[in-house]
This record gives sequence, C-alpha cells and structure tokens, in this order.
Amino acid sequence: MSRLLLNCDIGESFGNWPLGLDAEVMPFIDCANIACGFHAGDPGIMRKTVGLALANNVLIGAHPAYQDLAGFGRRSMAYSAQELQDLLHYQIGALDGICRAQGSRVSYVKPHGAMYNDMMANPAQLRAVVQAVAAYDVSLPLMLMATRDNSAAQAIGDEFGLTLWFEAFADRAYDSAGHLVSRQLPGAVHHQADVIVQQALTIAAGQPLTASDGSVLHLHATTLCVHGDNASSVAAVRRIREALNQQAQP
Amino acid sequence: MSRLLLNCDIGESFGNWPLGLDAEVMPFIDCANIACGFHAGDPGIMRKTVGLALANNVLIGAHPAYQDLAGFGRRSMAYSAQELQDLLHYQIGALDGICRAQGSRVSYVKPHGAMYNDMMANPAQLRAVVQAVAAYDVSLPLMLMATRDNSAAQAIGDEFGLTLWFEAFADRAYDSAGHLVSRQLPGAVHHQADVIVQQALTIAAGQPLTASDGSVLHLHATTLCVHGDNASSVAAVRRIREALNQQAQP
Amino acid sequence: MSRLLLNCDIGESFGNWPLGLDAEVMPFIDCANIACGFHAGDPGIMRKTVGLALANNVLIGAHPAYQDLAGFGRRSMAYSAQELQDLLHYQIGALDGICRAQGSRVSYVKPHGAMYNDMMANPAQLRAVVQAVAAYDVSLPLMLMATRDNSAAQAIGDEFGLTLWFEAFADRAYDSAGHLVSRQLPGAVHHQADVIVQQALTIAAGQPLTASDGSVLHLHATTLCVHGDNASSVAAVRRIREALNQQAQP
Amino acid sequence: MSRLLLNCDIGESFGNWPLGLDAEVMPFIDCANIACGFHAGDPGIMRKTVGLALANNVLIGAHPAYQDLAGFGRRSMAYSAQELQDLLHYQIGALDGICRAQGSRVSYVKPHGAMYNDMMANPAQLRAVVQAVAAYDVSLPLMLMATRDNSAAQAIGDEFGLTLWFEAFADRAYDSAGHLVSRQLPGAVHHQADVIVQQALTIAAGQPLTASDGSVLHLHATTLCVHGDNASSVAAVRRIREALNQQAQP
Repeated sequence: MSRLLLNCDIGESFGNWPLGLDAEVMPFIDCANIACGFHAGDPGIMRKTVGLALANNVLIGAHPAYQDLAGFGRRSMAYSAQELQDLLHYQIGALDGICRAQGSRVSYVKPHGAMYNDMMANPAQLRAVVQAVAAYDVSLPLMLMATRDNSAAQAIGDEFGLTLWFEAFADRAYDSAGHLVSRQLPGAVHHQADVIVQQALTIAAGQPLTASDGSVLHLHATTLCVHGDNASSVAAVRRIREALNQQAQP
Repeated sequence: MSRLLLNCDIGESFGNWPLGLDAEVMPFIDCANIACGFHAGDPGIMRKTVGLALANNVLIGAHPAYQDLAGFGRRSMAYSAQELQDLLHYQIGALDGICRAQGSRVSYVKPHGAMYNDMMANPAQLRAVVQAVAAYDVSLPLMLMATRDNSAAQAIGDEFGLTLWFEAFADRAYDSAGHLVSRQLPGAVHHQADVIVQQALTIAAGQPLTASDGSVLHLHATTLCVHGDNASSVAAVRRIREALNQQAQP
Repeated sequence: MSRLLLNCDIGESFGNWPLGLDAEVMPFIDCANIACGFHAGDPGIMRKTVGLALANNVLIGAHPAYQDLAGFGRRSMAYSAQELQDLLHYQIGALDGICRAQGSRVSYVKPHGAMYNDMMANPAQLRAVVQAVAAYDVSLPLMLMATRDNSAAQAIGDEFGLTLWFEAFADRAYDSAGHLVSRQLPGAVHHQADVIVQQALTIAAGQPLTASDGSVLHLHATTLCVHGDNASSVAAVRRIREALNQQAQP
Repeated sequence: MSRLLLNCDIGESFGNWPLGLDAEVMPFIDCANIACGFHAGDPGIMRKTVGLALANNVLIGAHPAYQDLAGFGRRSMAYSAQELQDLLHYQIGALDGICRAQGSRVSYVKPHGAMYNDMMANPAQLRAVVQAVAAYDVSLPLMLMATRDNSAAQAIGDEFGLTLWFEAFADRAYDSAGHLVSRQLPGAVHHQADVIVQQALTIAAGQPLTASDGSVLHLHATTLCVHGDNASSVAAVRRIREALNQQAQP
C-alpha cells in the first residue's frame, strides 16, 4: 500500500493577524500548502512557515490564490486563462524565492479557495492551471479534488506531462458523484473523531466509501486534506496520523 | 576597455496604466531592471516585459521595492533588516517565477526608489540587501551607486562574496564626493544630448569627470543608468549606445 | 425639453500613473464620475479631481467599484449583497470626505465596470446597490443603463424612494432590446463624429433611435455617457456639448 | 470633576482575521477608535464595529493610519503634509460613510500607530493633521498624547480652532518629560491591576503622577487609552471603569 499523504493549509496568517495552529499541526502532516501573499501570508510569514516546514521535514507546496486579501481568496473572480497563469507563476516563484533563501524549494502546487473551486468546476480553468504549473516546472505535482471519475482531469494532466495528486477528505460526506455534500445540508461535515479516522483509513486502504445516497463510492486519492485551524482539528490530524502509521505496519 | 552596460528601469506599468516606452528603449540597453509588483508591475506586465527583454537579448534584473504602490516605492518606510530581506526574496523569486515560465531567469538585482536611496544612505540597509541577494543566489550581482569611494560598499559585498555593479549617470551633475547634485539645485540635470553623450563616453573610458565644484572626480562604474520615460530620453539612450559602440571599435 | 446631462468617468489616474484627459474634458461635461480608490484613484488624485470639478461647476458623482486595482474593476467578483453595500458606503463616504474638505459633497452615484455590469444583469445586485445608496442618502440619484424597458429597475428605485438617472450612449449601436451591441460585432461602436453627435441630439430630443435590426427603439435617458480618454473622444464631447447647447435654444 | 473618557482601539480585525475582544470591551469604554481600512478594518468589519459601538452608546472615532496593511500601520512612512491630509480625509470620510448608513457619524479622530507617533514627534506633521481634521469638520476633537507640557500642541489646535483631547495611559510608566518610558526598559509597562487602576484614578482626579526618575509629573488628560486585546486587558478596563464610576460619586 502506498502512503497516503496528509496535506494541510498553512501559513495563512497575515501581518499582525495570526491564524491557525501551524506549529501544532506541522509535526503530523506530510505536505504544507503555504499561502503566497495573495489571499494570506506575507513575505515574513512565508519565511517563518517555510522554516517550520523544513524543521519538520514537511514538503512545501505553493498555495496560490486570486488576488483578494479582504475576501481570503474565497470569492470567484473572472480571470482569463492568461491572467490565471501569470498569477500562478508569480506566486509559485515568490514562495520559491523564500524557499531558496533557506536552501529549499517548492515541491508541489495546490490552488486555494475560489481558484481551486473554479478549477474543479471549469475544465478550461483546470487546463490553464495545469499548463501554468507545467511551464514553471513539469516535475511539480498539482493537487486537486478526487471525484468518482478522475479521468477528465487526468487527461489534461497527461497532455502536459504533469503529475496530479488527487485529494480526499476524511471529515466530509460525499455524494454519489464523489463531490462533497454541501455544507448547507445535514450530515455534510463529520464531527466525531472516530468517524473521521475511520474514513481516513478507508481511503488510505483504497477501499470504497458509502456515498450520501447509500451507493458505493470508489475514490482514488494520493493525499488527504486535513486542517490545523483549531485544537480539535489538530487533535483529529494527530489521531489520523497515528492510525495511518499503525495501518502501515505489517 | 571593458564594456559599460546600459541599465534602464522597465516594466513600470501597472494593470490598466501604461508607463514608459519599454519597447522603444529595449533595443538600446543591456540590462532591464524589471519592476516586481510592489511599486509597479503586475504578473501580466512582468510576463510581457520579460518576453520583450528576451526578444532583445537584454539581461533581466529584479527591481524590488518597498510595498507602496500608491507612492511608486518612492517613500521611505521603516522596514527592519529582516523585513527588507523577506521583501527581496519574495520579489526576486516572483520575477524569477515569471522568467522560469519563459525558460529564463533573473540575472542581477537593483533595488528601486526609496529602497535604493536608503541602502545608499545607511550601511545597515546595504548590508541587509547584500545578505539577502547572497542568500538567494550569490552569483547575482547587485547594482548600486558609484561614488568617489566605493570601498565601504565593496567591503560589505566582499564579506558575502557578492559581486557589486556600480552605476553612474550620464545626465546628472556630481558633487565632489561623487553624489548626485540635488535636483533642487541649478545644473543638476543635463538636458543637452551632447553633454549627456560626452559624460557617458568619459565614464566608459574610465576617465575623470569634473565635479560641480570644479574638482576632479574619478568614478569607477560598471554600468550606466539610462531612462526610457519619453521620446527624448529614448533618443538620448540611442545616441549613447551608438557613441559607445563607436568608442569600442579599434 | 429638459436638459440631457453629459456624464464622464474622471479621476482614473492612480499614484504615479496618469490616465485620461480630465482637465481637457471637464469644461464640456455636467457630471464627473470620480473613481474612489478601489479600481482607480487615490486620495491625492481624488482631491485634485474634486478641485477640478468644482472649478468647472461640474456635479461630483461617486464611481465606486469592486476592490480590484490590478484589474481596473473590470473583473466580475462574487460579492454578497451585504459586501456590496459595505463597499458602496465605504467608497461613497471616502469621496464625500475628500469633497467635504473642499466645502462640497457627492451628488450622485454611478457604479463602475463589473459592478455596473453585474448590477444591470442581476436584479438582486441592483437591489443591493439601490438599497445601499438610499441608506447613505436617499437624495442621491443612481445612474444606470437605459434600456427599452426601464420599468423593472424603476420599480426597485421606487421601492426605496431613490431617483434613477438612466444613461444612454451616443457612440454605441443598440439592439432592439435597448442593450449595447457587443464590441465583438461589426458596427458596435460609432467612430464618425457626425453620427455620434446626431445620436446624441436624437436622444436629447426624446426621439427614437434605430436599433441594429432596423427596429424603432425608444430610450428614455436623463444623461449621456461620454469619454475623456483621448483627444478624439474629448473633441467628440465638445461637439456634443455645442450641438446640445444649440438645440436647447429657441 | 469632569469625566475621564476611556478610549480603546477597536475594529482592528481584517477580512478573515479576527483581532481583539471588541464585543467584550465595548460595554466599558466611552470612545471607540475604529480602524478605517488602511492598517486594519475593512468595509464589513467597519459596519459591524459601528453597529456594536452604537448598541453600546459609545462615541465613534476615526482611527486613520498610513497605508500599510502588512505592517499594521506601525512603520513610519515619508508622507508629505499634503499626502497626510488626503489620507485623513479619505479615511475619516470612509468611516463616516459607514456610520451614515446606520444613522450615525464620526465624533472625533485619533491617528494610529506610526501616524500618531510621527505626529507627536514632528510639529509639522501635527500641524498637517490638525489642519486636515479642521478642514473636514472643525467640531471633531483630535486625540493626541498628553505630555508634561501640552502648550505647543495646544497652540496648533487653537490656530485652527480645533479641540484637542489629550490622552494618558494607566498601564505605562512616564519619564519626567511626560513621555512614555520605552518598552525596552524595565518597569515600562504596569502589569498589576491595582497599579493600573490606581494610576487611572490619579489621572482622573487631576493629581500628579510620579515619573520614572521620582519627579512629580502633572498630566492634564481628557481621556485614558485602554486596551481590548485580550481577557486580562479587558478585565483591567472593567476595573478601571468601576473605579472611575465609584470615584465619580459624591
């Protein structure tokens, strides 16, 4: 069984405003999605976050976003494909610059917020993102959402020779298409640690989940998205990490 | 005689606002100091400017600045040494990201506006800038102002193993210390093309200038700062280029 | 015949970047739509622009926009109705502050770019804008686009007791619904001064236009949108002004 | 004995980043210094903060700052007097716009961070601030720091007919000139609640403090600056409020 990587949004403080328990969650994750200054993060925060990742042997991922600090990159914005690629090159490069000064570098890319959602909803956007990452460095994997059928996305990745890392969620219910159940609906978010850990183990084992309509859902995921927002989410990450470690043993 | 490089601030448009005759001046210069988004430039402008530099075989320099778009980076800001280094790594990296997507890279660094002036006025600032560039890539030269005595700056460069490129001006009068005569004073700026071209040739030949008090001023410069703001400054750059080419012939 | 007001976007410079021939066009217009710092304009530009409007006895309108300086407010952004109202109050207030320091005040509101387009396309957005302006000062008219049938917009205005000023264009072709013909299509923009002036006179006289499909189009407009971008658009504004003055005489 | 007003910096969250216990401290203060978007605050935060102040019958003050969100307005920036006045008009106006939509208005002005410090250190800056507030609305008091001798500042206020509200601190030691002892020095900040409350009562009673060199220091203050950063500072404000209420009774 190949290892399921735990990825987490990190470095989302800004200036005088702290956010998230970065130092607490870092020991339990594999991949840190580090904000690049457009939705969160600033050069100083980025330096500290990169240092923290390096001290914990965590892979550094660029977490680029639309330029909307006041909206935390969560509002959709009508960028053209070219503008989107420019945004990506600028932000990945900026984080790479911060990494380089510490003898390191960016290892993968995961778009943030509305840029991520728009990329999943719109194949032209996904294509622009894939093309941008490939032009920057074709050896950098792109993280995106695993669904029931990853083949359309995979075809775009293959076209540009880019590795895709599909991510799943342990704390969210899925519908039969492999999309996350809307947070507006009951049961969308799992709150019990046991349920979350069990879903993580099921995904790691490559076994099917039960979708919200009771159907069987196969998700093929390379990585699991976890959260370091608060003490309870960090505790869940710790439990997932321990359970995965145990599962990995013969 | 080694070649005197012509460097010019370029890519200082922003969004919907054009600025400078970049395409017109690019054929006559050696080094393009490209704005990195903090005082001017945005990811799309940077892409186009990098493309223009590559098409003209011009070296690409990062032109980082204080974060003050409304003030065009011309207002001094009280950054700490650490903050200054973070700003530099972010901006050099961002431009390098844009370059990388076009198969190129940043070749040197020249701070902009108040960051440049503060660096020349304050050795601790200069030290922070030198240290930042060296940590990013010790092979990147740093451009700074040539004065009568470059030894203090050179000592800081040597300490970090960084190459310094001292720049002179062909269109400005110098005082006896090798500082530019303040624009407030009469005769500070040369307007006659013949005078400008002659001063460029004198600097290129390594011969002394006459300072504003009539004293002899030796300036040791690797590069000459020229301007692409308007048609007359572009015409002056063309004449300087042609005169230097002629001077360089046996 | 009541007077047709000429309105023009003004004060769209930013920091070091000039834009538009504000001083040249100001003598010929009635209403200056002044940028409020979110897509263009900064406090200093706003002060100078307000001063220029006052010197020319021109009404000052707030020209608020989405917060997207790099995109000049032209990219649609997914703001909630509440966020939109907050944006409006902030920006109208900011311009009113600049006005107040010169003994004047904002006299009307015209949203800019994507905020304007989204408001015309989406009744919920229009409702939020009308509500926001009414809450700020119910005596301020709101400028929006005249179409064949203004009644839906008028109903929203009436609900909040807000005056609506419908605007028409002299340099654009209309389709039979009273929408502007897309710039992608041939004949969308009138370039001949005579045609532009004639269309202005027709609108001012309350007479019907001929739509792009040849049908008769009645537009009821209070104001005409004109442009001060370049010398030729300023010349057109001057001719429109002179023709309207002549038409107004008995 | 006239009442000593308690003023507190409020509304310093931004976008997705919360900061400060605004709701907790609001019931105990008289004056809320509300951030105007340049160092903290955004239109939505400002709306909520104004609503909270109104619900608690707290005076609304504009808390304008240099345009430096990443630096929280704490870095000195070289603004000209004219630029400073433009900044003030824009920000006071913006907050007034938010207030107006809730049927209220700005009642006084207190510059933030580096703008405040520079104003206290540089009479030309203070003069520009006083002039700007007077031009906006001469009935708005300006808050600034009480020192041993307020006469120079008072003369500037008198020249423009502006009321000055001098503020003192209950949790800081003073030197003999009536300046705050630097935080770098031991004893600069009082941590014991009893000491803080006693200093507040002494100031409220118009009685002298003991400066750090043991000398007698008379401070004439209209208002006391308190803090809502955390639970312990809020608790101190509550105790100060209760002690002042008790002192005020016959």
